[in-house]
Amino acid sequence: MLETLRQEVFDANLELVRRGLVLYTFGNASAIDRGRGLVVIKPSGVPYETMTAADMVVVDLDGRAVEGDLRPSSDLATHLVLYKAFPAIGGVVHTHSRQATSWAQARREIPCFGTTHADYFYGPVPVTPPLTRDEIESDYEVNTGHVIVRRFRDLDPLAVPAVLVGNHAPFCWGKTVAEAAYMAVVLEEVAAMATQTLIANPNAEPVAQALLDKHYFRKHGATAYYGQK
Amino acid sequence: MLETLRQEVFDANLELVRRGLVLYTFGNASAIDRGRGLVVIKPSGVPYETMTAADMVVVDLDGRAVEGDLRPSSDLATHLVLYKAFPAIGGVVHTHSRQATSWAQARREIPCFGTTHADYFYGPVPVTPPLTRDEIESDYEVNTGHVIVRRFRDLDPLAVPAVLVGNHAPFCWGKTVAEAAYMAVVLEEVAAMATQTLIANPNAEPVAQALLDKHYFRKHGATAYYGQK
Amino acid sequence: MLETLRQEVFDANLELVRRGLVLYTFGNASAIDRGRGLVVIKPSGVPYETMTAADMVVVDLDGRAVEGDLRPSSDLATHLVLYKAFPAIGGVVHTHSRQATSWAQARREIPCFGTTHADYFYGPVPVTPPLTRDEIESDYEVNTGHVIVRRFRDLDPLAVPAVLVGNHAPFCWGKTVAEAAYMAVVLEEVAAMATQTLIANPNAEPVAQALLDKHYFRKHGATAYYGQK
Amino acid sequence: MLETLRQEVFDANLELVRRGLVLYTFGNASAIDRGRGLVVIKPSGVPYETMTAADMVVVDLDGRAVEGDLRPSSDLATHLVLYKAFPAIGGVVHTHSRQATSWAQARREIPCFGTTHADYFYGPVPVTPPLTRDEIESDYEVNTGHVIVRRFRDLDPLAVPAVLVGNHAPFCWGKTVAEAAYMAVVLEEVAAMATQTLIANPNAEPVAQALLDKHYFRKHGATAYYGQK
Repeated sequence: MLETLRQEVFDANLELVRRGLVLYTFGNASAIDRGRGLVVIKPSGVPYETMTAADMVVVDLDGRAVEGDLRPSSDLATHLVLYKAFPAIGGVVHTHSRQATSWAQARREIPCFGTTHADYFYGPVPVTPPLTRDEIESDYEVNTGHVIVRRFRDLDPLAVPAVLVGNHAPFCWGKTVAEAAYMAVVLEEVAAMATQTLIANPNAEPVAQALLDKHYFRKHGATAYYGQK
Repeated sequence: MLETLRQEVFDANLELVRRGLVLYTFGNASAIDRGRGLVVIKPSGVPYETMTAADMVVVDLDGRAVEGDLRPSSDLATHLVLYKAFPAIGGVVHTHSRQATSWAQARREIPCFGTTHADYFYGPVPVTPPLTRDEIESDYEVNTGHVIVRRFRDLDPLAVPAVLVGNHAPFCWGKTVAEAAYMAVVLEEVAAMATQTLIANPNAEPVAQALLDKHYFRKHGATAYYGQK
Repeated sequence: MLETLRQEVFDANLELVRRGLVLYTFGNASAIDRGRGLVVIKPSGVPYETMTAADMVVVDLDGRAVEGDLRPSSDLATHLVLYKAFPAIGGVVHTHSRQATSWAQARREIPCFGTTHADYFYGPVPVTPPLTRDEIESDYEVNTGHVIVRRFRDLDPLAVPAVLVGNHAPFCWGKTVAEAAYMAVVLEEVAAMATQTLIANPNAEPVAQALLDKHYFRKHGATAYYGQK
Repeated sequence: MLETLRQEVFDANLELVRRGLVLYTFGNASAIDRGRGLVVIKPSGVPYETMTAADMVVVDLDGRAVEGDLRPSSDLATHLVLYKAFPAIGGVVHTHSRQATSWAQARREIPCFGTTHADYFYGPVPVTPPLTRDEIESDYEVNTGHVIVRRFRDLDPLAVPAVLVGNHAPFCWGKTVAEAAYMAVVLEEVAAMATQTLIANPNAEPVAQALLDKHYFRKHGATAYYGQK
């Protein structure tokens, strides 16, 4: 069941390993089949070295196991909230990658310091406030999703396909799980550059709106002209 | 004798190499067989490239050689103090890994800036005061153990399975030597993130107690729900 | 057609990958055949893993496709401006490599802090002002070339074979595309050292003119004595 | 001629590559045969990928070629001054490794912040003043040697087997060329840690004299007890 999606989720998880974004069993990727209302996600705490596509867990949108013997990622509930709130997305990736997580820990949005950032994120990468004690103590993972969704009240999730959960780490997404993993890799690079930028110039300023527009729309939307047709 | 433990200690030492935590012959890992009162430890100054499980040295709790022709690690006496003071631990790892050692050199505890830290360390990673001149000049390695044990007077070593010895480097531990090595790797990552966090925000604040509780107990104790059953 | 140049451009692109200067499809290298007035450049958005020398695109100096089915790099127009303005150069490389890009984002020229820099760049690596809104909104890539050329009004492009475009990233060049790629790699190292230098000493000072002269001319020009004859 | 020494110099040069201390043709290692008064050194500007032990160049103490068709490293004259001034050393290594070079560029000695440093360097790693204009303009490489030797007027070169030449880069040495390369690798690590230490604590203080003594003499001299007999 969902053979292809299972493979895609597995591949996205491995891409995170290949790119150095995860340590041990950290991180998780999932994808949704919107037609069937089913989500495929990495199992919890299984080493990447021995994981196979068959280990991916299939759940419905309430998180009930549909296929697979393993427990789903402990962050499943956050993924499900994102799928329900952002109908345009098809994949979600969560990592504790070093550079992006450092900005989440700093509770600071990543300013758009340059075109590398503008090529993928239409504006700063936002940071959520940390969850309140009540939000933490009951339904923590669900509330992590809610705090993200609230932060995106005035943002288009496909135009800004990543968020930093304050004191926690990034969540990224995309139309597919492969795209979500790609965004996680780019976010890590953008975060690293932003940190280095601050050392070279503690008062560095973000790009002008015109440059943000130019680079973002060079790669996205009807007027894009990057890449092959 | 102690074939399995010897192999486990050897494997843990190699894990430190694989994860980039040791340079040349730096670092050492040991494990204890509580039943027999014997400790297996890496030999001193032997290159990892040529080391075999058979090179591991077996000593009793007074540090007397029981098996093996090679000299034990020069930090053996510190390991022994830790095994005697912390009855719950089964393995000890000492490294001079770059990021954690930098915090030891800064003589600053690593604040719990995020959930990556909270997943493994229930509070800041403590730093010991540097040893006094007297403590250094006689029984240095024993006293290194004592300064750690004193620092843990009000701490549970399994809840905070690492320490930074001021102006020196980290010691980590766990129920097994594999767990101790795992903690050394996670500590290195947590230390690196903390440093990067300070660049992004020199006034970064630690996580709230509720978030620390949530993440730590999501992975530890009776209420844990991370990983497979 | 242009078999050799095509291979050289392909090799230079791969060198950027090997040296860790590019992520995914980032970056592009080109070379010019001055006799025929033709430029060979990497195609836009094609993964390096599957790219072959045959995928390189041949265009004339107005950017019209002469050979190849793929679209040329979206930065082609910038390369063409550079070839027209700097008759001595034979290759151009553009990357978003982490360290050099961070200085471009900081909008700060890289001071010549030491001999590693002086060996290759005869003075600071200059930074351009960011493009104006008008320059961005029409003919952006052409104007990126112009802003570089204006910055080099009083500079010899072969003596300072790199520039940082403000809020964007570096462009490098050389007599050949291999040399341009080499400069991109050295620039990345020089940028990284400059950042680390500022941490060790926020008030670090550039080298004296005599040292800059010595190192630069040890490797360049009639009096050079580095390397084999 | 000098088959073994040639191989040792070649191996030391390759060790620098393996440990990530050199880019392209940067860096050079040499060794001396004190009995014959001959020095073996890396050729200038030859790529490490194609270099063989046979490419090593043999010169006398005045720098005259004795064997080998290739030109010696352009830094040969500095090596020769060091061999003449420091009779106890048998090998010299010069690199532009990123972290140590950054401290040289910062013109700041590396304080002994911890035991990793104290294990190998008996005190701060000194920095020379930059050369004067006169020293640069005639016999630059010889004068680079002299400025190092002057800096060591009150230092034992075997106790502090490295120096940072201001605005330039490190030179390291040891009883053998293998030891000199080892010191270059350790210096790079120590420099990296010192930089990270300053981020975690800009007011970090060096180790106490007693700790420096303890660690240094645990590894060196008659009372050493690290390693195998």
